[in-house]
Amino acid sequence: MNGNFSFHNPTKLYFGEEAMSHLVGELKNYGPTVMLSYGGGSIKRNGIYDAVMAALKEAGKRVVEDAGVMPNPTIEKVREGARLVHDNNVDLILAVGGGSTIDYAKAVSVSAWCDEDPWEKYWVRGERPDCRIVPVGSVLTMVGTGSEMNGGSVITNRATGFKRGRVFGSDVMPKFAILNPRFTFTVPQYQMVAGFFDIMSHLMEQYFAGTADCTTDYINEGLMRSLIHSSRIAAKNPQDYEARANIMWTATWALNSLLKCGKGGDWEVHQIGHAIGLVTDATHGMTLASVSLPYYRHVMHDGLHQFVRFAVNVWGVRPEGKSDELVAQEGLASLEQWMREIGVVMHSRELGVSEENIEKVADAVLILPVGYRTLTRDEVVQILRESL
Amino acid sequence: MNGNFSFHNPTKLYFGEEAMSHLVGELKNYGPTVMLSYGGGSIKRNGIYDAVMAALKEAGKRVVEDAGVMPNPTIEKVREGARLVHDNNVDLILAVGGGSTIDYAKAVSVSAWCDEDPWEKYWVRGERPDCRIVPVGSVLTMVGTGSEMNGGSVITNRATGFKRGRVFGSDVMPKFAILNPRFTFTVPQYQMVAGFFDIMSHLMEQYFAGTADCTTDYINEGLMRSLIHSSRIAAKNPQDYEARANIMWTATWALNSLLKCGKGGDWEVHQIGHAIGLVTDATHGMTLASVSLPYYRHVMHDGLHQFVRFAVNVWGVRPEGKSDELVAQEGLASLEQWMREIGVVMHSRELGVSEENIEKVADAVLILPVGYRTLTRDEVVQILRESL
Repeated sequence: MNGNFSFHNPTKLYFGEEAMSHLVGELKNYGPTVMLSYGGGSIKRNGIYDAVMAALKEAGKRVVEDAGVMPNPTIEKVREGARLVHDNNVDLILAVGGGSTIDYAKAVSVSAWCDEDPWEKYWVRGERPDCRIVPVGSVLTMVGTGSEMNGGSVITNRATGFKRGRVFGSDVMPKFAILNPRFTFTVPQYQMVAGFFDIMSHLMEQYFAGTADCTTDYINEGLMRSLIHSSRIAAKNPQDYEARANIMWTATWALNSLLKCGKGGDWEVHQIGHAIGLVTDATHGMTLASVSLPYYRHVMHDGLHQFVRFAVNVWGVRPEGKSDELVAQEGLASLEQWMREIGVVMHSRELGVSEENIEKVADAVLILPVGYRTLTRDEVVQILRESL
Repeated sequence: MNGNFSFHNPTKLYFGEEAMSHLVGELKNYGPTVMLSYGGGSIKRNGIYDAVMAALKEAGKRVVEDAGVMPNPTIEKVREGARLVHDNNVDLILAVGGGSTIDYAKAVSVSAWCDEDPWEKYWVRGERPDCRIVPVGSVLTMVGTGSEMNGGSVITNRATGFKRGRVFGSDVMPKFAILNPRFTFTVPQYQMVAGFFDIMSHLMEQYFAGTADCTTDYINEGLMRSLIHSSRIAAKNPQDYEARANIMWTATWALNSLLKCGKGGDWEVHQIGHAIGLVTDATHGMTLASVSLPYYRHVMHDGLHQFVRFAVNVWGVRPEGKSDELVAQEGLASLEQWMREIGVVMHSRELGVSEENIEKVADAVLILPVGYRTLTRDEVVQILRESL
């Protein structure tokens, strides 16, 4: 562990098949008006909407409905939601859905009572909220982003052409999250697998940074090994409760700030992925999958020791009698094999990237001066081209 | 992950060489009167007392001194501290020390405004506090127990002859903890190494339970591997900041309830250790070390799959061509070698256990019906005899 840091994560997690039984008790900690935010109709088809409404009724709440949160939530939708919260004096925003819905709920929670334009204040200038923050709770129905236990909020601004992530502090983190693995069973295979890769990307993007010996890397390796094991089972049999439960738990801990303690991070794959998402509206996890191998092969030599460690400790590559380079390459080959096995998108072409829009994607990529190598714009284009 | 569980740990951690710079800011969140609880004179010799007093002064606090917290804090001392807190209307208990001091502070925090006898209510009947709970903060000077981020409180009652652990909920957990690895540098080697084994015991006692595939075990393996690596360095060079920092962080996460999520635990080694501590007043971590090998060799056949996994994933034992039993034995042999290397007490005789008091120790052992095997009293005596 190096440097100075703090850790504070007060989100209360209820996990398991009976997790919903805690919702009524949690609701009672808040005032009379609850805004129920969700996406499309899927929670109405699978019964989750009815279960949540029953809990809201039992807790005696007045419900403000807020449907239609889109997969890449926009600042326009955030402004609408903020108005609803403000005008109804909402006491709790209950987000029922995946990362997009919870990211959106957090954005609304800091915007409802904000006097300035939230996009400029939070996603451009990166300021802290100095207004009343409306509490957020969540019922998770899709696994991957970790939004249920962090302060992250990725919002898209179509007008200015940016998709930007922002990490708020512990005062914006959800107060509670209901994690029932069965609630994720009806997610289509494509979305499920995209979520698996999103988790792996969170793990790798925090792992591939730094040179010090750091406990955080050991924890990260454990989470990667668990994810690899369980995702192989779940990709074949999405109804395997044990595997889905392990993956749900892994996703939460992969991005609740534990894995950044005492070390840096990379996050360039997420930046490229966000740019692809902005241009193509493709599923987030798949955008990451499509560029990860070209990216990691590109920066491997700059962080060789860590790629060797990744190969040995995560993938079980035997290092005896091999050069560091070969060991590192074998690690990335194992990653590639696992990606093919669980069935993620291996080429950005399949998501709509092409020679025609590659420059537009590159323009939207935020280049971070962290990780083992700071890319040039030319390198971004090169990686995108290799990802096609 | 199996079953239903919840996780909620709101303790704020400040980590690193500059962690103390956050103390004044934290103190400002509480009322005017702070009780400063600590043990002997060591914090006065190493400058930590002065640094804490300076922060208390800067924050404008009235300080109630509460020195003399002993290594195995007694319920009598808790009653005294509770009276001090009550009579001075203390707003925050600031525990400066190791696990004993923080365990004690938590005990005082739930006793000061309790109308009943706290020993009977909390440590015998196991009830929840239903009185005002006085907030606790901590500045950690000794690593091992994890008390800085959990609700645990081990208290000794000499009158009735019991040493009992109690785990309170998140409302009793410290509000904040200052973790500066350098503050642990002056701890004597014997106490330092005892702390290392205490951590390992927390990890093992949560690991050796259950049969399901569980993400928690993967995280636990990562923490064990980090601890083994860093403790080997620190035992030879206690001034190695990186190693001591990794160990400090590992200790906190080894017992903050993350590692019990989704699985059972064992904890019989701690019960036997507590009994030895009660009879001999020996250092906690050393009592655990002295009985662990006989205990684990005794129960190995009952949880063979997990001992095989321990050998392979934690100690790097190669399983090819070996029986499960041999692999498991090699894992425990690696554990033994590491224990000798870092220099823990290998025989309970060195702590004062003998044929003369072995029955008295056995009488004080609480037998838990969990883990891979529930011991009989005869087996407890047998393990104690093998530990001599």
